[in-house]
Amino acid sequence: MSPNSSKKNLNKHTYDKDEYFIARALNLAKKGQGLTSPNPAVGAVVVKNGIIVGEGFHEKAGQPHAEVIALNNAGKDAEGGTIYVTLEPCSHFGKTPPCVHKIKESGIKRVVSAIKDPNPLVSGKGLEYLLNNGIEVKDGVLSKEANRINEIFFKYITTGMPFITVKEAVTLDGNLGYKTDTEKVYISSPKSLEYTHYIRFINDAVMISAKTLIKDDPSLDVRINKSDMKEKFLKKRWTKIVLDSYLNTPPNSKIFKSHGDVLIFASNDYDEAKVKRKKQLEEKGAIIADVYYNIKEGKKLLNLEYVFKKCGELKITGILAEAGPELFSSLIKEKFCDKLIFNVTPYILGRKNGLDLFGLINFEFNEKINFSDLTVKKIKDDVFLSYYPEFA
Amino acid sequence: MSPNSSKKNLNKHTYDKDEYFIARALNLAKKGQGLTSPNPAVGAVVVKNGIIVGEGFHEKAGQPHAEVIALNNAGKDAEGGTIYVTLEPCSHFGKTPPCVHKIKESGIKRVVSAIKDPNPLVSGKGLEYLLNNGIEVKDGVLSKEANRINEIFFKYITTGMPFITVKEAVTLDGNLGYKTDTEKVYISSPKSLEYTHYIRFINDAVMISAKTLIKDDPSLDVRINKSDMKEKFLKKRWTKIVLDSYLNTPPNSKIFKSHGDVLIFASNDYDEAKVKRKKQLEEKGAIIADVYYNIKEGKKLLNLEYVFKKCGELKITGILAEAGPELFSSLIKEKFCDKLIFNVTPYILGRKNGLDLFGLINFEFNEKINFSDLTVKKIKDDVFLSYYPEFA
Repeated sequence: MSPNSSKKNLNKHTYDKDEYFIARALNLAKKGQGLTSPNPAVGAVVVKNGIIVGEGFHEKAGQPHAEVIALNNAGKDAEGGTIYVTLEPCSHFGKTPPCVHKIKESGIKRVVSAIKDPNPLVSGKGLEYLLNNGIEVKDGVLSKEANRINEIFFKYITTGMPFITVKEAVTLDGNLGYKTDTEKVYISSPKSLEYTHYIRFINDAVMISAKTLIKDDPSLDVRINKSDMKEKFLKKRWTKIVLDSYLNTPPNSKIFKSHGDVLIFASNDYDEAKVKRKKQLEEKGAIIADVYYNIKEGKKLLNLEYVFKKCGELKITGILAEAGPELFSSLIKEKFCDKLIFNVTPYILGRKNGLDLFGLINFEFNEKINFSDLTVKKIKDDVFLSYYPEFA
Repeated sequence: MSPNSSKKNLNKHTYDKDEYFIARALNLAKKGQGLTSPNPAVGAVVVKNGIIVGEGFHEKAGQPHAEVIALNNAGKDAEGGTIYVTLEPCSHFGKTPPCVHKIKESGIKRVVSAIKDPNPLVSGKGLEYLLNNGIEVKDGVLSKEANRINEIFFKYITTGMPFITVKEAVTLDGNLGYKTDTEKVYISSPKSLEYTHYIRFINDAVMISAKTLIKDDPSLDVRINKSDMKEKFLKKRWTKIVLDSYLNTPPNSKIFKSHGDVLIFASNDYDEAKVKRKKQLEEKGAIIADVYYNIKEGKKLLNLEYVFKKCGELKITGILAEAGPELFSSLIKEKFCDKLIFNVTPYILGRKNGLDLFGLINFEFNEKINFSDLTVKKIKDDVFLSYYPEFA
């Protein structure tokens, strides 16, 4: 490696004062990630004379907003101070009263916001209210980071469609494991699996194909060995989504025993046997949604547009797709991928026996996909590469 | 990403005092990397009462050793001090007198060394001499890092064989580019190419196949946009190695115009035409080495064992192989790979048109290769993953 590579922080950044406190507020906001859906994760810090006098984050939909917690925390000290918020304070009555009223009442004289409310109906109105009430306003501090933290919420609130993260654990040569099932290979290390579970946690749902379900019989829950995470997960609304044209999901699958709802998408054609299977699965608690489909090479492929629209209607804001080669190629080719996370594992299995994740991606010439905004996380000999696709 | 990922240094380490100064000496040693062959890169720091009073690094074979430079730099201040060296000081007369004499004469009272001399004939003898002369000795401080810095030298000096780094620029789906030549794709970014050139710089030679040479006509030199690097490169012994069974290398190739020697390995069978081609290439200055070969699927594959042995005999200590799918699969399958560097670029090209680096690796079932000791370097949306293979 280069002379200085071991000393450099991969995501280095030098902060000015406003950025420093917004960065702190962003770290607070992160504590709410995965718990606030369908609300955004928000953090707030109240500063007076350079000293933090109050802070807080939004913990759950229906609970107080970050600004309110931070201001209550600061009490009288808020007067004449600055509040740093990771998202424009709300100016409308939701489940709680507008935060801008609370800010005004507290005597805050300056508001620094990372990013405007993405909802076009209210965007900018909170800051406008503050300005009209003689409060100094600064906007757009670390807005990119603030956008990333709530990328799921931002997409959902502006489009009604869920944010789709496609996550794959692949070997150096792009294999998901071996083709044959005779020996199961765990290519991810335990530490990497824990991180994968964290990625699940910040989403509302996980999606797999019936093929993977039948092959692996996964629980599709979140298992993190941290004292309070299990508890938090069990309180979280969680959905396990299976794409299963033929309703072949076995009624004794583990997904029916683990925490959360089971949502199965099936093709909207039924014979007597399939009706029977549907009934069995519904008895197990599954929600079955019938979907239009296309037939391709003898297989019924569900209409993904409909699938994701339906998820949005059900207020599923973020979906983590853990796809095999078939679903992966459909998601990529049909552009149902807002973020791609590759867990690259340190093996070469070879093309002969390996299950090639990319085996079904048969682009025409020059039909390549570019990815950008890479972030890197190294876990021992595994590395997680996260990108955003730039679909043409 | 996880709540704290953006703040963490990927290769974090907390140093104690001895480690701190050895780390500094290692950073000095790195300045000599690529220039000292066939000698190791060594750095030294002289410390007295916690203050650095002298430092230096070995700049080139035949020039003074790091210890001598650091001690001369310290002068009288060395007396009673500690010298930190990244490699056990030599106790034998080479091109320069033994460093242990100089250390003794300087009045140094303590020597901290990162790692013993790997040469079994002299290993430990330098430290022994110091101990026998009443000097305190500590060994093994940051030995892993010290080993890595001189991994090329260590392999060469202990085996006579060059250290082989296999470097590949691949897309997310493992493609080197498109299969067809109709459009050339530069998948690496300019910044990544600069890093690639740095990796070339710390080696003695670069190796490609004739196929790649004919397709791309590369210069195979080192181009880094830093003021003194060009000058340093032009003073460096540098070899461009082509594996070319049939001697199809065009005599007007760019490699004959750029800095360094051209070394071509050919199969040791000749007809009249090939003899003529050999003569033409030799007239251009190429060194041609004839090698045993095997015929596989109609192709003459050179005996790589012989190729690398020959390189070792020519005092080529480190080779960077920039291989296409054929050479890559041979190097991996025949275990001629000491280090693997993957420059993962942010594209998916698909299997249909992509040139799959792994297309010819057809392991038998369970014949996988594990890699370990990952280091990561991120350059914008590119990432360099470096590993060491663990061949069974």
